[in-house]
Amino acid sequence: MKKKSLPLAGVYRLLEPGPVVLVTTHGARGANIMTMSWHTMMEFEPPLIGCVISGRNYSFGILNETRECVINIPTVELAEKVVGCGNCSGRRADKFKKFSLTPVKASRVAAPIIDECYASLECKIADDGMVEKYNFFVLEVVKAWIDPAEKHPQTIHHQGKGKFMVAGETIRLPSRMK
Amino acid sequence: MKKKSLPLAGVYRLLEPGPVVLVTTHGARGANIMTMSWHTMMEFEPPLIGCVISGRNYSFGILNETRECVINIPTVELAEKVVGCGNCSGRRADKFKKFSLTPVKASRVAAPIIDECYASLECKIADDGMVEKYNFFVLEVVKAWIDPAEKHPQTIHHQGKGKFMVAGETIRLPSRMK
Repeated sequence: MKKKSLPLAGVYRLLEPGPVVLVTTHGARGANIMTMSWHTMMEFEPPLIGCVISGRNYSFGILNETRECVINIPTVELAEKVVGCGNCSGRRADKFKKFSLTPVKASRVAAPIIDECYASLECKIADDGMVEKYNFFVLEVVKAWIDPAEKHPQTIHHQGKGKFMVAGETIRLPSRMK
Repeated sequence: MKKKSLPLAGVYRLLEPGPVVLVTTHGARGANIMTMSWHTMMEFEPPLIGCVISGRNYSFGILNETRECVINIPTVELAEKVVGCGNCSGRRADKFKKFSLTPVKASRVAAPIIDECYASLECKIADDGMVEKYNFFVLEVVKAWIDPAEKHPQTIHHQGKGKFMVAGETIRLPSRMK
């Protein structure tokens, strides 16, 4: 794996911009992948991520049961595979095989890292108090990985019905925010 | 105001890509603006938005008390004002004056719309059950506005410490997702 360990304090910089992510889980019938856009940072360190996973998704049950997942961040080169993962269900397909994605063993959770994604966040459920009402999970990132060679990751950002914004240029401003 | 009414079912398309937003409130001492990046969609319709607002922010108390706010989405032309709003507190400054932003009367809430932003979402608190633990508000969008002339809004996306990604090109893929 090209990815190196990333200090947990840096995780928010990856998720704040709102990229589409691929969530991997590992259940009794093997590993699965789902596409997700409804997530937000909730705390810097340890990093907490809030995310909505519909109860209709195959991954919902696995996450609920195993309490673990990996959030993988793809770039535009993977856009077709990302959409493909969203268009089918892990109930009927092995998505790693179907989309030629490479599972790599994670360090702290059973769910696999997707090698082709430039960053991967190993997560455990920190709070499931809002799952019943909103399908909203609070996840804690317990280990983070990033490809140091990816300086300007062209993440993709869902705008609905097959339309995605691709990350453009970056600008720097004298912000006092973290 | 150039903005027209937007059906509530379309709100998710504005927030899913993860833009930095300007949250306006209106308290006893007048209107305020704060910069925010930690938000996620939680439901399509009526649109629910989850967001984290630190208890240290002046807007936290006003939102908690008045139960209302407007989420305004700026484009890159406003980037310096967006950062400026994040660098100072409404306790000591009238940010509408300080940054020459124009308040427009909203239809369903007392908090003002920012005229210069291309979209504005009038919100009421739907659930404050996670505020004590995470400063996490669940907001319901009760009215939405968008400038129909803004076809490719160059939103800005926070990457930490003054670095922002500017929305690039859009691509279309055969997604079956909403």
